Amino acid sequence: MVRVGICGVTGYAGYEALRWLRRHRGVQVVFATSEAQAGKSLADSFPGPLDIALTSVEDAPFDQVDVVLLALPHGAAARTAVRALEAGAKVVDFSADFRLDTAERYAKWYGHAHEFPAMLPIPYGIPELNRAAIAQARLVANPGCYPTSVILGTMPLLRAGVVSDATIIVDAKSGISGAGRAAKINTLFAEAHDTVTPYNIGHVHRHVGEIEQELAKLSTGITPTVIFNPHLVPVVRGMLSGIYVRVDASLDEASLRALYTTAYADEPFVRVLPAGQLAAMAHTTNTNMCAMSVTLAQPGLAIIMSSVDNLAKGAATQAIQCMNIMCGLNETEGLQ
Amino acid sequence: MVRVGICGVTGYAGYEALRWLRRHRGVQVVFATSEAQAGKSLADSFPGPLDIALTSVEDAPFDQVDVVLLALPHGAAARTAVRALEAGAKVVDFSADFRLDTAERYAKWYGHAHEFPAMLPIPYGIPELNRAAIAQARLVANPGCYPTSVILGTMPLLRAGVVSDATIIVDAKSGISGAGRAAKINTLFAEAHDTVTPYNIGHVHRHVGEIEQELAKLSTGITPTVIFNPHLVPVVRGMLSGIYVRVDASLDEASLRALYTTAYADEPFVRVLPAGQLAAMAHTTNTNMCAMSVTLAQPGLAIIMSSVDNLAKGAATQAIQCMNIMCGLNETEGLQ
Amino acid sequence: MVRVGICGVTGYAGYEALRWLRRHRGVQVVFATSEAQAGKSLADSFPGPLDIALTSVEDAPFDQVDVVLLALPHGAAARTAVRALEAGAKVVDFSADFRLDTAERYAKWYGHAHEFPAMLPIPYGIPELNRAAIAQARLVANPGCYPTSVILGTMPLLRAGVVSDATIIVDAKSGISGAGRAAKINTLFAEAHDTVTPYNIGHVHRHVGEIEQELAKLSTGITPTVIFNPHLVPVVRGMLSGIYVRVDASLDEASLRALYTTAYADEPFVRVLPAGQLAAMAHTTNTNMCAMSVTLAQPGLAIIMSSVDNLAKGAATQAIQCMNIMCGLNETEGLQ
Amino acid sequence: MVRVGICGVTGYAGYEALRWLRRHRGVQVVFATSEAQAGKSLADSFPGPLDIALTSVEDAPFDQVDVVLLALPHGAAARTAVRALEAGAKVVDFSADFRLDTAERYAKWYGHAHEFPAMLPIPYGIPELNRAAIAQARLVANPGCYPTSVILGTMPLLRAGVVSDATIIVDAKSGISGAGRAAKINTLFAEAHDTVTPYNIGHVHRHVGEIEQELAKLSTGITPTVIFNPHLVPVVRGMLSGIYVRVDASLDEASLRALYTTAYADEPFVRVLPAGQLAAMAHTTNTNMCAMSVTLAQPGLAIIMSSVDNLAKGAATQAIQCMNIMCGLNETEGLQ
Repeated sequence: MVRVGICGVTGYAGYEALRWLRRHRGVQVVFATSEAQAGKSLADSFPGPLDIALTSVEDAPFDQVDVVLLALPHGAAARTAVRALEAGAKVVDFSADFRLDTAERYAKWYGHAHEFPAMLPIPYGIPELNRAAIAQARLVANPGCYPTSVILGTMPLLRAGVVSDATIIVDAKSGISGAGRAAKINTLFAEAHDTVTPYNIGHVHRHVGEIEQELAKLSTGITPTVIFNPHLVPVVRGMLSGIYVRVDASLDEASLRALYTTAYADEPFVRVLPAGQLAAMAHTTNTNMCAMSVTLAQPGLAIIMSSVDNLAKGAATQAIQCMNIMCGLNETEGLQ
Repeated sequence: MVRVGICGVTGYAGYEALRWLRRHRGVQVVFATSEAQAGKSLADSFPGPLDIALTSVEDAPFDQVDVVLLALPHGAAARTAVRALEAGAKVVDFSADFRLDTAERYAKWYGHAHEFPAMLPIPYGIPELNRAAIAQARLVANPGCYPTSVILGTMPLLRAGVVSDATIIVDAKSGISGAGRAAKINTLFAEAHDTVTPYNIGHVHRHVGEIEQELAKLSTGITPTVIFNPHLVPVVRGMLSGIYVRVDASLDEASLRALYTTAYADEPFVRVLPAGQLAAMAHTTNTNMCAMSVTLAQPGLAIIMSSVDNLAKGAATQAIQCMNIMCGLNETEGLQ
Repeated sequence: MVRVGICGVTGYAGYEALRWLRRHRGVQVVFATSEAQAGKSLADSFPGPLDIALTSVEDAPFDQVDVVLLALPHGAAARTAVRALEAGAKVVDFSADFRLDTAERYAKWYGHAHEFPAMLPIPYGIPELNRAAIAQARLVANPGCYPTSVILGTMPLLRAGVVSDATIIVDAKSGISGAGRAAKINTLFAEAHDTVTPYNIGHVHRHVGEIEQELAKLSTGITPTVIFNPHLVPVVRGMLSGIYVRVDASLDEASLRALYTTAYADEPFVRVLPAGQLAAMAHTTNTNMCAMSVTLAQPGLAIIMSSVDNLAKGAATQAIQCMNIMCGLNETEGLQ
Repeated sequence: MVRVGICGVTGYAGYEALRWLRRHRGVQVVFATSEAQAGKSLADSFPGPLDIALTSVEDAPFDQVDVVLLALPHGAAARTAVRALEAGAKVVDFSADFRLDTAERYAKWYGHAHEFPAMLPIPYGIPELNRAAIAQARLVANPGCYPTSVILGTMPLLRAGVVSDATIIVDAKSGISGAGRAAKINTLFAEAHDTVTPYNIGHVHRHVGEIEQELAKLSTGITPTVIFNPHLVPVVRGMLSGIYVRVDASLDEASLRALYTTAYADEPFVRVLPAGQLAAMAHTTNTNMCAMSVTLAQPGLAIIMSSVDNLAKGAATQAIQCMNIMCGLNETEGLQ
């Protein structure tokens, strides 16, 4: 039995992690933390059947667990990761604190110096790209939800070297749980229910930093620029990225799709839809799957629809997938 | 032209009032206040086509308007009403501050002493019950949303003296805008979207005070006790009260319905549905209507479904209806 | 390995059954039927990760399974159940065909003669009431969703003999999946999204038949009449029944709650909430739980809020619970 | 008083037209048709406060009205338009039957020959582009919802000649009322509520025909190709088109925005948002507005977010705007 601690269990991603671990046969959840609710019980905060005593991060017994799933705000995450590592635990960090490879890149996208620059770089936790590195790591940077959908959705094209224009346009739609569980007016039900709202469009959303970093590693000859345009849509969970990529004009749709089916042939959690089907949020809700469709809009212009559940493959279950790999468990355990 | 000021225009009810007044041919909106946004523009807070400069209540020129629509929190409302009245304006107060007839009743339901006990009682602003008093008033207490639906839904039975048991059970469902525009976790989209949540059930919700007060005035022989059971449902606006009333066993459904059609025959904003139709929220959304259906479940047990839009007939448009009456305008002006 | 067949897998309840059985370690799904989609693949009808070849009921190999989960329309269900039983399989029937104990009661509520009157009565599949009978049965009548919430929500009061008035009022709210997957205008998104709609209120909904039948068995001294008032609310899944019961005036709330905690002390799938919490839909969504709260509104009037997921404990997972019992599996297997 | 007939009032767009005409001071609605409900009353089909007797198209007295708002299915629309014109009425046709200028283009996008090729071309009903032609017309082709948002959203760039690449990518999101009021499984609440679903992406949606036709008229030097990617999102009404256009690299964002503010300076129903605001669905819901924002993502790449209410400026209220112009009424009457 792998002993697990969860930090930040009263946030949406932390709670989601606990929800899935309940069905995982190889782990035991030893503690769960909540800053706001320490001393209380989880069932006081969430009306579902799950319950566990809540402790503060300060009091969390990191030395009694093998691995920590760290769903804390940026900044607090890095400091807690260091504490947990020092106590001997492995860590999967849900935050952005360790996603960027260099302190320079971090400063550029987050506006202040990294607190632990000497620790960088840390393996980026998309198993489909970095399985070997994750297996060896004691700390893994779990990717953002948007980046997961975009990186998996473009990897086959970039690796195949068929992208003909460095500018990739992404029009992304996210469920509102992606905005977190803090009380804010713009995510109140009455504000968010009957509208679709774009935000941080262009080249400014912080996730652009990690997307471009990872796409550059997959590319030869070009350095992708990602014009990233996120929207909040009135669903609780789910994410769909429409990815518009210029490709070699000689490629037909079947050839494009073949790049995807080949790249993901052995991946249990990536599904390339057959011709004629388009990926929707519903293909992946409440699963650890990334589903994608490949459409040739006209010669030289591919459209990838890439769907993940922002709380699952976009956060908690991808972290569990990483944890399974780091701890020598079956990679799919607890995730189907 | 009646000159109007709106206090609290960045809350849902105040904004709704402004939205309707835009189509009203007899008024001119002179000012609008917002504590949090004073100095800014309304369009910065609400993404719709409406715009107006926002001032603070302190700076509001009460002496330049004929009537104030007061959509402020309890407490602040009473103090502002006094200021506006002293400046010579008439006031429709959306809050509960003047709804209860006596300081004793107020203290019982609100837990502290009334600040202006000598001003009580104030006319209760349901025109279908109190038209004459409203016409004479300089200050009117606009009813709560739940009370509007329940009082209109039971008035014909109580006036006819056919209620046989003092205990009236109400199972009420409200859209989430009814919880206000304050940032709170329980009204976040991701918390409220996929559930129905009862709260304050039994005999504890503050609206019970005004409901029982008004029902008692309509009754002879009994003093109704209202078991009031509200629920939040995932719609932005709308309200449906299921009202379960024991009535004389000799009454058939047609006789019951006749009590309603007779009572409301001349009312432009109350609609009694024909036999075979049940009132739903959709009957009244975005209107100043109260729609109701009458069903005899078994001899002696009537079910009234009473529907209002919680922001309209349950708040802003009922206030405009009162304003029209108070200011000598056509009662239906701007409301159809 | 228990071999299972699912009939009607392209309806919501049949699909839900398959979704849960995927995680069940003691079963193997051998076939799945769909009349409209026979010959195709499940993934063509539902955009999720589940897939299975679809056959027609006519071609289904009932002799190759141990148990059939039968999610077919009324009428077709009974005839198919007979075929499956003759082929040697056990059957859990999701339809109403075998829920009523006598042909007379069936004719009264369904308006035509029962096709197999000699088979009646069949054990009613609420394990918390009929565990022993279910264990012995080859055919079980899986209850309706509303009846599950109401029967579990009133059983402790009726068994204790504290109900003082035979008329029980239920104000019930159901997610729209309860209306089934047939194309109808009233369940279109644009019709159902922004409203709450009562239907079949009073004493006319067909579920009243099975509710009153089962409540009568639990009662001594009274024969309950259930005034049952269902509403469609804009959630996909979930159900909340507000149950208003007159009880002995001498009982306090703690005594009432003790009846519930005692009655369900050993039940893994019933949760009685502590004082101060009210059951909401969110307590049970996506679980096999029934959660309930007990409130004393005034002396002599109890309010039970009873929550189930209409597709889970109200249909598919309760059927799996019955199947586990009928097949000698651990009752909770696959349901947590 | 202009006398108006509405054909197809039990569809969403026809009903919306009636809803707005209720507040229009210059018209009188003489008849309303419904094929499925002829002989009944509108209130039997829609639970709101509106009511009118329903006749069949066959029995509609076209000779007693000045103008017909024609919200019928394609095909039936053209034949009915001819009848109404022959009876002396003017017609605003909501369907696509007269939107394409030539029979060849019609055959290409609709797959069959046009029934009345000699009538083509007909003025395309976007007043902001074709006000003079609409004023002279007896028949106007009311645009599609998507085309309205895309054409208004790109016109200033095309007219200014600053578009540098003929391929324009549109990622569009529509409320589900856009799919019409026919009973279909994919638009059931339980299918559409928790997902975002792309459909007909690339260069295949029928609206591409009219978009490209109109954009070509606005362009000099290029013939735009529109890669059009629509999605259904879980709102009842609303539409947001994200438009990605390559422009001259020398333009800064202020210059781009100035093209828009200049082009629409005198338009009452187009709103160009100030820098720092992005157009959301909520900017236009329940209004005849088109709201748009202009963002320069990087030198040479502009992003226009263009928002309309698909039932209002995207259908019914744009038709009323055209009707006002055709009938010599104030263009904004009834639309504010």
